[in-house]
Amino acid sequence: MNPQCELIATNFAQVYYSAFQGDRSKLKDLYCEASQMTFEGKSYQGTADIMKKLQELPFKKVMHSITSFDCQPILGVDGGEAVTLVIMGQLKTDDDPPHSFVQNFLLRKAGDAYVIGNEMFRMVLHHS
Amino acid sequence: MNPQCELIATNFAQVYYSAFQGDRSKLKDLYCEASQMTFEGKSYQGTADIMKKLQELPFKKVMHSITSFDCQPILGVDGGEAVTLVIMGQLKTDDDPPHSFVQNFLLRKAGDAYVIGNEMFRMVLHHS
Repeated sequence: MNPQCELIATNFAQVYYSAFQGDRSKLKDLYCEASQMTFEGKSYQGTADIMKKLQELPFKKVMHSITSFDCQPILGVDGGEAVTLVIMGQLKTDDDPPHSFVQNFLLRKAGDAYVIGNEMFRMVLHHS
Repeated sequence: MNPQCELIATNFAQVYYSAFQGDRSKLKDLYCEASQMTFEGKSYQGTADIMKKLQELPFKKVMHSITSFDCQPILGVDGGEAVTLVIMGQLKTDDDPPHSFVQNFLLRKAGDAYVIGNEMFRMVLHHS
C-alpha cells in the first residue's frame, strides 16, 4: 500500500470507528454538506441527513472488528491527497451475534483535514 | 441512486463482467497506465501489470452473480462525471462452489469513455 495513503486511511478509520462505538454524535465532524452516504441501498446527502440516519440506528452498543483493509490514493484529485478505502469486518450490536459488513469511503481533503465525500455501507448478511 | 451515475455504473459492470467471463483479454480496454488494482491485498499498477495478474488467474470458467450494487457520483472530479461503485456478489469458478466477493471501482472520464482509476477486490470467504 502507498504509505501516505495508508496513514491517512488508518487514522481516519480509527477516528471513525472509535466515534461510532463511543459517541456517534462526534461523527458529524467527518461529514460536510457535499457528503453522500448509501446505507443498505438508501441514499443520504449532507451532514444533517446522514447524522439523522446514523443516530437513529436502533442499537445501544456496537463493536467493529476489522478483517480486511484496502486503500489507494486517487490520482489527480485534491492534489493527489484524496483516498479511497474499503473495509471489511464484523459488527456486533447489543447482544446479537456478529455479522459481516463492507464499508467503502472516499476521503476528500478539506483544508488541513479529511472529510467523507462518499460512503457506501452494506451488511454481507444477505449476500453470502 | 443518481440516474446518470447509475447508467454509467451499470453499463460499465455489464461490459466488465461480460469480458471477464468471456474473453478476459478484452478487459485491457478498461484500464490505463494510471489504473490501480488491489487484488486480495496485493497492489498492481497500469494496464500491463493488471492484465498480467488477471490473465494468470487459474480458472477456465467463471460466473458472477450480483447481489448488491451501489454507486455515487464523485463531486467536483472529471467534471462531476467520475463514479464510485461497490458490487457484492457470488462468483463461481470451474466446478467450485460459489463464494461471495466484494469489488469496488472508481471510474474516471477519459475523453468519451470511462476507465478504471481504482479497483479493490476481495473474496468474503475469510471475512464472514
